[in-house]
Amino acid sequence: MNPAPYAYLRGDFVPLDQAFLHVSDLAIQRGYGIFDFLKVQDGHPLFLDYYLDRFYQSAELMELAVPLPRPELEAVLRQLIGRNNLPLSGIKLLLTGGYSSSGYEPPAQANLIITQQPIALPTPEQLARGLRIISHEYVREFPAAKTINYSMGIRLLKRLQALGADEVLYHQQGSVTEFPRANFFIVRPDDTVVTPAANVLGGITRRNILGLSGRPYRIEEGPVTLHDVRQAKEAFLTSTTKLVMPVVQLDDHVIGSGQPGRVTLDLLHALTQLEQQQLTQSYA
Amino acid sequence: MNPAPYAYLRGDFVPLDQAFLHVSDLAIQRGYGIFDFLKVQDGHPLFLDYYLDRFYQSAELMELAVPLPRPELEAVLRQLIGRNNLPLSGIKLLLTGGYSSSGYEPPAQANLIITQQPIALPTPEQLARGLRIISHEYVREFPAAKTINYSMGIRLLKRLQALGADEVLYHQQGSVTEFPRANFFIVRPDDTVVTPAANVLGGITRRNILGLSGRPYRIEEGPVTLHDVRQAKEAFLTSTTKLVMPVVQLDDHVIGSGQPGRVTLDLLHALTQLEQQQLTQSYA
Repeated sequence: MNPAPYAYLRGDFVPLDQAFLHVSDLAIQRGYGIFDFLKVQDGHPLFLDYYLDRFYQSAELMELAVPLPRPELEAVLRQLIGRNNLPLSGIKLLLTGGYSSSGYEPPAQANLIITQQPIALPTPEQLARGLRIISHEYVREFPAAKTINYSMGIRLLKRLQALGADEVLYHQQGSVTEFPRANFFIVRPDDTVVTPAANVLGGITRRNILGLSGRPYRIEEGPVTLHDVRQAKEAFLTSTTKLVMPVVQLDDHVIGSGQPGRVTLDLLHALTQLEQQQLTQSYA
Repeated sequence: MNPAPYAYLRGDFVPLDQAFLHVSDLAIQRGYGIFDFLKVQDGHPLFLDYYLDRFYQSAELMELAVPLPRPELEAVLRQLIGRNNLPLSGIKLLLTGGYSSSGYEPPAQANLIITQQPIALPTPEQLARGLRIISHEYVREFPAAKTINYSMGIRLLKRLQALGADEVLYHQQGSVTEFPRANFFIVRPDDTVVTPAANVLGGITRRNILGLSGRPYRIEEGPVTLHDVRQAKEAFLTSTTKLVMPVVQLDDHVIGSGQPGRVTLDLLHALTQLEQQQLTQSYA
């Protein structure tokens, strides 16, 4: 077995298996904290600026102060990546409410923890099979912030398992928003690609897709209803680790042909190219 | 300084200042956990059965298994109380999602942590002054479960401070529910005492008040609107540590005379007597 990778914990590098927080931390006491998660390939953190923008933004929205200014945080990340030397990994930046003597009022100092662990990309079999999803009415409390509150998503895992479904798609009165840990897109009958605009986390993969140019179809943000999903030709999920994953069924309704669609696969290809460009630029 | 009291952490008694959880715990990763909080006076946990009922109920609602059967949990509580020997204290039972290798899927074993710390009761000055509260539209995600998610309450602390207010009262489209950490009652113009019935945590002090008999006024659960609060003669907050605290102002509206009311103080007296009865029974 490999030794545990290093983590950064409140100012120090420690082996991950020795990374502990005191129970007075507000994440443990009150579920209070924010985080972010980015992918590292061959030593290069992909789209780092976007992830750090979002991390500082989430912290600000939840009134937490990141204890490191951005250049220092970047330096810590590069040190960690150098120490751990993992070929393909995810880095989690976690900022908790900190050690609170009252167990409720946030202290001046938030706790910053950074962990890095190997990740696996979706397999060709998973891509070919696509995802079956169910809908559930729920809106996250602070949709613009990447908080650590996943109570609803975790609480629904057993229902997913019982139904043989892969993911749950949140909606509010039929207006679709996002997955617990991913964004959602559909391809309308006229080939327009659209992702919900309101009450969603600004995913970086979502952002990268919206930023693509020169495709033979439009890509935009806008309202998406459950009805729209049932009428869609294709649908897919986007996330940092899953990139672009076809969605082939919503509740009892098969979407389009029930197979990964042409536009979905074209966008997956475009995203993969974009990641390769990032890597090439990093080496240049 | 006194030495740190003992805590119970995953099967062992440890000094509270040495009570740590690994960062893979689902409370830290995903804000996933439940808890309860009870008062201990002169070695006696007050209304213990009610608190333990609720603790196991919250665990079940969030699909977490308490690692100790109830008689063993009670034995651990009594051991902890004996070791720490504090005159007046609060005991927090905390059940987190446990150490998750994926950082999302709950493991078989949840983590049980029990801490005990001195508490202070409200002073006569605080009682005489009463609480000024503000309203905020929000409903907790799992109102019947005492989950650790207090992101909204904590996020609103700065607003409370800016407005010079003491607490925030949640409502949904004008229908009042509860405080982040307490229940709410009003006294209607006809002297009926009423507490919101729906979308609230079943507080033990609330339950004790609803169970009082022989008062010269009715005490009941029912719908309470923000309009009802403005029309009320009196209002008060109930909690384990605050017992019965007068509420004298909601947003810009002074409630009743703006002073702690007759019914409120009568109920505070009745609750104090009920606690004394519990203590007497414990000694008998």
